[in-house]
Amino acid sequence: LTTYANLPYVHCLAGKEEEIEKYDIAILGAPFDTGVTARPGARFGPGGIRRGSRRISPESAYDIESGENVFLQWAEIVDCGDAPLTFLDNTIALKQLDKAHEIVSGRTAKSSRSGTPRIVTLGGDHTTTLPALRSVYKKWGKVSVIHFDSHIDTWDPSVLGGGVSHYAGVNHGTFLHIAHEEGLIRNTSIHAGIRAPVVRPKGDRKNDIRCGFEIVKARDIDRLGVAGVIARLTDRVGESPVYISVDIDVLDPAFAPATGTAEVGGWTTRELLSILDGLAGLKVVGADIVEVAPVYDSAGEITVLAAAEVAHSLLGLLVRTPVKAP
Amino acid sequence: LTTYANLPYVHCLAGKEEEIEKYDIAILGAPFDTGVTARPGARFGPGGIRRGSRRISPESAYDIESGENVFLQWAEIVDCGDAPLTFLDNTIALKQLDKAHEIVSGRTAKSSRSGTPRIVTLGGDHTTTLPALRSVYKKWGKVSVIHFDSHIDTWDPSVLGGGVSHYAGVNHGTFLHIAHEEGLIRNTSIHAGIRAPVVRPKGDRKNDIRCGFEIVKARDIDRLGVAGVIARLTDRVGESPVYISVDIDVLDPAFAPATGTAEVGGWTTRELLSILDGLAGLKVVGADIVEVAPVYDSAGEITVLAAAEVAHSLLGLLVRTPVKAP
Amino acid sequence: LTTYANLPYVHCLAGKEEEIEKYDIAILGAPFDTGVTARPGARFGPGGIRRGSRRISPESAYDIESGENVFLQWAEIVDCGDAPLTFLDNTIALKQLDKAHEIVSGRTAKSSRSGTPRIVTLGGDHTTTLPALRSVYKKWGKVSVIHFDSHIDTWDPSVLGGGVSHYAGVNHGTFLHIAHEEGLIRNTSIHAGIRAPVVRPKGDRKNDIRCGFEIVKARDIDRLGVAGVIARLTDRVGESPVYISVDIDVLDPAFAPATGTAEVGGWTTRELLSILDGLAGLKVVGADIVEVAPVYDSAGEITVLAAAEVAHSLLGLLVRTPVKAP
Amino acid sequence: LTTYANLPYVHCLAGKEEEIEKYDIAILGAPFDTGVTARPGARFGPGGIRRGSRRISPESAYDIESGENVFLQWAEIVDCGDAPLTFLDNTIALKQLDKAHEIVSGRTAKSSRSGTPRIVTLGGDHTTTLPALRSVYKKWGKVSVIHFDSHIDTWDPSVLGGGVSHYAGVNHGTFLHIAHEEGLIRNTSIHAGIRAPVVRPKGDRKNDIRCGFEIVKARDIDRLGVAGVIARLTDRVGESPVYISVDIDVLDPAFAPATGTAEVGGWTTRELLSILDGLAGLKVVGADIVEVAPVYDSAGEITVLAAAEVAHSLLGLLVRTPVKAP
Amino acid sequence: LTTYANLPYVHCLAGKEEEIEKYDIAILGAPFDTGVTARPGARFGPGGIRRGSRRISPESAYDIESGENVFLQWAEIVDCGDAPLTFLDNTIALKQLDKAHEIVSGRTAKSSRSGTPRIVTLGGDHTTTLPALRSVYKKWGKVSVIHFDSHIDTWDPSVLGGGVSHYAGVNHGTFLHIAHEEGLIRNTSIHAGIRAPVVRPKGDRKNDIRCGFEIVKARDIDRLGVAGVIARLTDRVGESPVYISVDIDVLDPAFAPATGTAEVGGWTTRELLSILDGLAGLKVVGADIVEVAPVYDSAGEITVLAAAEVAHSLLGLLVRTPVKAP
Amino acid sequence: LTTYANLPYVHCLAGKEEEIEKYDIAILGAPFDTGVTARPGARFGPGGIRRGSRRISPESAYDIESGENVFLQWAEIVDCGDAPLTFLDNTIALKQLDKAHEIVSGRTAKSSRSGTPRIVTLGGDHTTTLPALRSVYKKWGKVSVIHFDSHIDTWDPSVLGGGVSHYAGVNHGTFLHIAHEEGLIRNTSIHAGIRAPVVRPKGDRKNDIRCGFEIVKARDIDRLGVAGVIARLTDRVGESPVYISVDIDVLDPAFAPATGTAEVGGWTTRELLSILDGLAGLKVVGADIVEVAPVYDSAGEITVLAAAEVAHSLLGLLVRTPVKAP
Ligand SMILES: [Mn+2]
Ligand SMILES: [Mn+2]
Ligand SMILES: [Mn+2]
Ligand SMILES: [Mn+2]
Ligand SMILES: [Mn+2]
Ligand SMILES: [Mn+2]
Ligand SMILES: [Mn+2]
Ligand SMILES: [Mn+2]
Ligand SMILES: [Mn+2]
Ligand SMILES: [Mn+2]
Ligand SMILES: [Mn+2]
Ligand SMILES: [Mn+2]
Repeated sequence: LTTYANLPYVHCLAGKEEEIEKYDIAILGAPFDTGVTARPGARFGPGGIRRGSRRISPESAYDIESGENVFLQWAEIVDCGDAPLTFLDNTIALKQLDKAHEIVSGRTAKSSRSGTPRIVTLGGDHTTTLPALRSVYKKWGKVSVIHFDSHIDTWDPSVLGGGVSHYAGVNHGTFLHIAHEEGLIRNTSIHAGIRAPVVRPKGDRKNDIRCGFEIVKARDIDRLGVAGVIARLTDRVGESPVYISVDIDVLDPAFAPATGTAEVGGWTTRELLSILDGLAGLKVVGADIVEVAPVYDSAGEITVLAAAEVAHSLLGLLVRTPVKAP
Repeated sequence: LTTYANLPYVHCLAGKEEEIEKYDIAILGAPFDTGVTARPGARFGPGGIRRGSRRISPESAYDIESGENVFLQWAEIVDCGDAPLTFLDNTIALKQLDKAHEIVSGRTAKSSRSGTPRIVTLGGDHTTTLPALRSVYKKWGKVSVIHFDSHIDTWDPSVLGGGVSHYAGVNHGTFLHIAHEEGLIRNTSIHAGIRAPVVRPKGDRKNDIRCGFEIVKARDIDRLGVAGVIARLTDRVGESPVYISVDIDVLDPAFAPATGTAEVGGWTTRELLSILDGLAGLKVVGADIVEVAPVYDSAGEITVLAAAEVAHSLLGLLVRTPVKAP
Repeated sequence: LTTYANLPYVHCLAGKEEEIEKYDIAILGAPFDTGVTARPGARFGPGGIRRGSRRISPESAYDIESGENVFLQWAEIVDCGDAPLTFLDNTIALKQLDKAHEIVSGRTAKSSRSGTPRIVTLGGDHTTTLPALRSVYKKWGKVSVIHFDSHIDTWDPSVLGGGVSHYAGVNHGTFLHIAHEEGLIRNTSIHAGIRAPVVRPKGDRKNDIRCGFEIVKARDIDRLGVAGVIARLTDRVGESPVYISVDIDVLDPAFAPATGTAEVGGWTTRELLSILDGLAGLKVVGADIVEVAPVYDSAGEITVLAAAEVAHSLLGLLVRTPVKAP
Repeated sequence: LTTYANLPYVHCLAGKEEEIEKYDIAILGAPFDTGVTARPGARFGPGGIRRGSRRISPESAYDIESGENVFLQWAEIVDCGDAPLTFLDNTIALKQLDKAHEIVSGRTAKSSRSGTPRIVTLGGDHTTTLPALRSVYKKWGKVSVIHFDSHIDTWDPSVLGGGVSHYAGVNHGTFLHIAHEEGLIRNTSIHAGIRAPVVRPKGDRKNDIRCGFEIVKARDIDRLGVAGVIARLTDRVGESPVYISVDIDVLDPAFAPATGTAEVGGWTTRELLSILDGLAGLKVVGADIVEVAPVYDSAGEITVLAAAEVAHSLLGLLVRTPVKAP
Repeated sequence: LTTYANLPYVHCLAGKEEEIEKYDIAILGAPFDTGVTARPGARFGPGGIRRGSRRISPESAYDIESGENVFLQWAEIVDCGDAPLTFLDNTIALKQLDKAHEIVSGRTAKSSRSGTPRIVTLGGDHTTTLPALRSVYKKWGKVSVIHFDSHIDTWDPSVLGGGVSHYAGVNHGTFLHIAHEEGLIRNTSIHAGIRAPVVRPKGDRKNDIRCGFEIVKARDIDRLGVAGVIARLTDRVGESPVYISVDIDVLDPAFAPATGTAEVGGWTTRELLSILDGLAGLKVVGADIVEVAPVYDSAGEITVLAAAEVAHSLLGLLVRTPVKAP
Repeated sequence: LTTYANLPYVHCLAGKEEEIEKYDIAILGAPFDTGVTARPGARFGPGGIRRGSRRISPESAYDIESGENVFLQWAEIVDCGDAPLTFLDNTIALKQLDKAHEIVSGRTAKSSRSGTPRIVTLGGDHTTTLPALRSVYKKWGKVSVIHFDSHIDTWDPSVLGGGVSHYAGVNHGTFLHIAHEEGLIRNTSIHAGIRAPVVRPKGDRKNDIRCGFEIVKARDIDRLGVAGVIARLTDRVGESPVYISVDIDVLDPAFAPATGTAEVGGWTTRELLSILDGLAGLKVVGADIVEVAPVYDSAGEITVLAAAEVAHSLLGLLVRTPVKAP
């Protein structure tokens, strides 16, 4: 009854053969948080982000900046609810999420502009991006990743996870490494907002480059300005298909306290939204907003409000540029 | 016992004929929040702002920037307590507030510099600005409004309120429209900090212009700077009498979570206070700080601290420029 | 079991003659908050800052900006726990803290680079800086103080404390005055981030100058930029030995709500950390982070996260520049 | 997507002629809180109670006391979502709620055991009980009301509402008076858990009796025991059709802080649930749980957990005794 | 503007010779918390308790149990605001409080029934009871103390305070010892609700007896019942003048989390209020409710609601039995 | 630096051959919460319980009820800190915890009264009890379990965990089933405080009996009284060695909101502690207090205060009755 932005709920996760309403862009919740190393709680992120969006009304959401209403253009945008994920076995849960992505993106889109439905995932911890990347790879091939985060998340599983088991190695700090190993992402990816320390003096950064990433550090914005950051990101990914992943911890904890691995010294919500809006025109084939752990929010619900607006901005990018699957 | 800034309490709301202590500037609480569309709670705003001001001491509040003490100049500043307002009938409550303004502003000022007492209202939801505008109109004629807010608040009642009844049409998003319809405000008004979406693609903005408003959007500050925003505001209102209304939601929720209709991507408290202080010299005939709903505040009470300082800055503007009623 | 940044605990406060592990830089908690004029609670600051640092791991804390790991260079950094301080008699408590500093700094350092252990104190209210200054004075002579705060803290005890007793005059707003009177600090000291009002129109600032301080006001950063602030600070103290004291209330309450005397309109955490890191090269002989009162923090623990990172940055300055005691 | 107890959502509020899934018992949210005299916020009650019920699973909710699963017996129980109610005009909102009840209860029940669907309303402030009583009256005639509350709620509108207007007189403290005036309730009604003061020394109680109520006061339970309270309630209403209304403030604020008009000295959740379960066998034709204002809840969400279990117990009573409409 | 129970504010603390309105019972705030050994914050207790009482209206507070309105009988009850107490020197602060009591109780009462005004103090930490006992001693001679607390508070200053100084020995755990030493209390005093551990195996209890106290332990209520506890208390004090001191920590933290030294396993609010009401008829010459530290309260403000009702009950005892000073 | 009850920290987890201080009873933290089905966060339980115990001082903790000081009798009680457990692989983590128990209980006790050190575990989610049971089994053979909980926790893994994998089947609701399957527990075990629903109408209870359990339901206390509950528990386990496991959710959420799977209608802290103390004399060979998830606590920290006192009571039982290993 509480959907993202009061959008219509569609039972996208019904069996493939079942007749359901068509859509172009799908909101999908991924309630999963057992891949975290610090504070858990992102399993309640999808519900929290939806609550944070409850004042958005699709009929009356004309942006005061752009003059446009994301929800009333060519694209049918719907909320598919949450993927059913077990909290008790990460291996199973990630397979369940792989499957959910396959079903949701596997249907025929409503509009002929895109053909293939695109998905905005509401996390869940950052591990949930891995199934999303697998899913976009199958439809669009390798993607450039624009990764907003205070952490690089390309750690080698032997470094983050302690090498105690393969199971432990699949987590919210290694999923980008794994995505690279699985051949899902391009060598034209880029991090934005990084400020957390790394584990090895040189090895982590070397591996990060190997995984295809450049870095815009959090404080770089003071030198480059918002426009400069936008230029760095758009130049990097160029014409390639792009996946945008926003770890809410890219924001300073003052703006987004409700996250598991908060790092001080981050960006403001105004900066982040300006940057996101500045990515208009990129060929975005999928996106997510993750690591929202509502129990750490303030009474004013500031994190979920910010996350809801990040999702709104991501939807704007998808609507702005329809992308045909090859 | 807790007055704003530990100022003396004066029973300004006593019968007109009653002898009370004289004053030049009056703080007046307006505990009202039944004109809101989202989170209620601003009925406890006046008490909250007073608590947020408890460390201000009129005898020892010499500003480190300006070197001046607002409370120890020509003007007698007092706290009149709260207007008695029912929570159970908006029509009655707004009449009660009309009456309170009439009584408080109707007495003879202490100093000959102004003649007429001016009022700084502590809201209450934004609907409470309407009686304030009616009150200043009676004394000073039409005013220019400088309206700090994330929302335009000039919505046509048929658009915001749903047209279900006249009663429903008088609310915190339509009061500026109504003020215009009642002929209270000039065509030289201006919004500052706007970022919330509008309901109609063109109609809302057209009506906004008709109501006399230009707009400084929230992100404009990144281009104009604080000084540029100040210039836009002061140029717009010129020599006209000015009413300044500050909806605390002009701030980003990180700085002011305790409000009903929080919008992310707003200004910082440092930006807002710098802008307010930059308005020195304008002929301010009344002002308010509204939409503070303390229950949504953090344990550190950051919203009420910010609101108390906004009120402090507004008082500074009133003290700086005495305005003789015509 | 929870030490700052998971550093080894050393029982530094054991009798002078007792054999303990050697160290170069000591973290020392000062649980004291009965010298405050507003909200108490900083007695739980040391524990709070340690909790805020629990994700820092000395083995894997390579800074993404500088590429260095503060904890794995020449200096042995340890956590000495808290000084045992009574909450029931300030005079006794400050003597206990004098003694703790004497013992902790009185041992032979591990490395020959410095000879004398240096201390980073975790407050505690700001009064706890006084024993720290007495301690550094004994080892290094008079120091320049770089004092990050929204308040000047050089008030004359007769002004702050009300002159009711000598006991009342020793508090978190007068300790810098007292430090000057005791001859501990140089005439080349400087405040940074000041914005709170003063008690007397001219007397406070005159006395402040007499105590050796210049001022960088909070809003000066909008004119000077981060680099300009750094220049002001480093120019001021020059080659002299420096003590850096960070009152967490230098930050805006949005970034650090958990403090006793919060003042709106302050710096962001990103600004503060950039400034601190910009002080690299100064001869820092001691430092502290004070006025953290965790009960006022948000559920996301944003203040203690910020304070932990301030301490991290301070440690960086100490490690960067070993200082030989004369 | 979050329904009460993960029950199926049915679009009961669709037009009367629309074909929808049949049901026997309907959960209906009533987001309304502008009839309150103290703390607002119950407009978010329905969503809060649903969140509090999210761990209940209809397939696996076999009660450890009774051995039964309320959800898997003869009755089809569904969640109809929230009635669409304006926050800006009480008169309109209550008509909207009248209409919602009419539609939801107006359909043919799934099972032949009852014929008429029964409704459990999730409030909303207590005013929302008035439309519910109007609705049951139309189907079953006059009902006895078992009213769990710390307040009597039979105040004369001229006493509560101040007599300022008819509009103001319809509120959460007068709805039972109005229900009596409208001839909806029997002279065999009873309050349970009363402890709040009354406004008039004798008049309120006299009027209360006139409205058909006896009283079990909060402290009476110390004398009567749970069994004694049950006996008082069941004896009072006998064989008549019964409406059960539970104002969550019947609980002590320790058990239910999240309410608008909390009164200390109340019952524990264990006492309340034992009493409710003890009413098995009564002919309950409708029920509600109201005055849940989630923003006042603790981080552990204790109030919404209690409210969800109250609703669960109420459903048990409805399932236990099917009631044929005359 | 927020007085206890919306009672009239009277400037009782004006100079003795000043003409003010007469009263029989005075509410007096004692904002002091620097005598505590655990969590501070009770300095904000008086304001918190007043907020907790804001729904009490003296004109319409007819008790549903007793049928009486405490505020509308023979006694004029007023709120005198807070005694001006320094936070920076306990010795001075307690003298300031001595003086405040002297002034407030030193005026002529309004009614001839008592002659001497009686005071209900809103603490403040428990040390504030000492000046209250000195004050009642001067008017009525030695009193029996009924002391509701989880702690005995008769500790020898050398035991609690550590013997480090005389100053440290005057605190919230020793004030009853000191009161005994000063000859203020009778050998017919009694504790109620005790459950916290003692410091010495036998010495503390021996000293406690010497100070004149018997004990009703917290769990004794399970054996005695409420009536039995009442009997123990009333039997103990008999016809002597009685001072009732309620440390809010007598309640279980579930009912009163907002206190400095919370002890689990305590009484419920219903139990405490029933016991207090059961003391009707005693010759109560003074009373207090202390150790309320609002920052630890839940969002629902449950502690201050409970404390406000405790004060209400205490007022009832004072009104019920006027006591002529000898 | 924060140990349980300020007890000495001993590095019990050092290599078996390492020389460390001897002890009789060890506190051991088990920071693990990835075996939960609802709200996570118990990984921070050990730290939280230690903070909740910070006011307990071993030198001065003479119980007011029993007159004894648990910490100053024959047994050396120490805090061993936390077992190092990965959050990223339950299988590994439980092995790590098995090992920690083996090491800690494998050393020679200090006193000859017991020979084998006994352990009180601070959870962690309830899964952490499984390694504890394995550990006691190795020393003392099969034990009777007294299991305080609102849930039975003997679910068949195929029922709780969904049968999706063996990994998922090992969780906080199945560990007692597994313990039975592993032959660790006797057929003379008993639950206390049960009230949560079961998943299967008959199967769960049948399986529960098969696992060796009787049930005292939460509401049984209203019939049996505290003494009756004690009798049921002690009769059931008789002379057998006993393991006591306390899931904090046995308390009502009003008393212990900070837990993952809160169930309303539970026991009060006073009831629970009275029952625990009533078990004196049983041959307790190990115990734990689990499922404390501090982030859900109120500002007053009521859950960790209760949990700390539960641990205190458990220590009392261990000290009261030394048990020789066979
Ligand atoms: Mn990430
Ligand atoms: Mn991250
Ligand atoms: Mn507005
Ligand atoms: Mn607004
Ligand atoms: Mn300071
Ligand atoms: Mn400061
Ligand atoms: Mn009610
Ligand atoms: Mn009620
Ligand atoms: Mn006490
Ligand atoms: Mn106490
Ligand atoms: Mn359990
Ligand atoms: Mn459980």
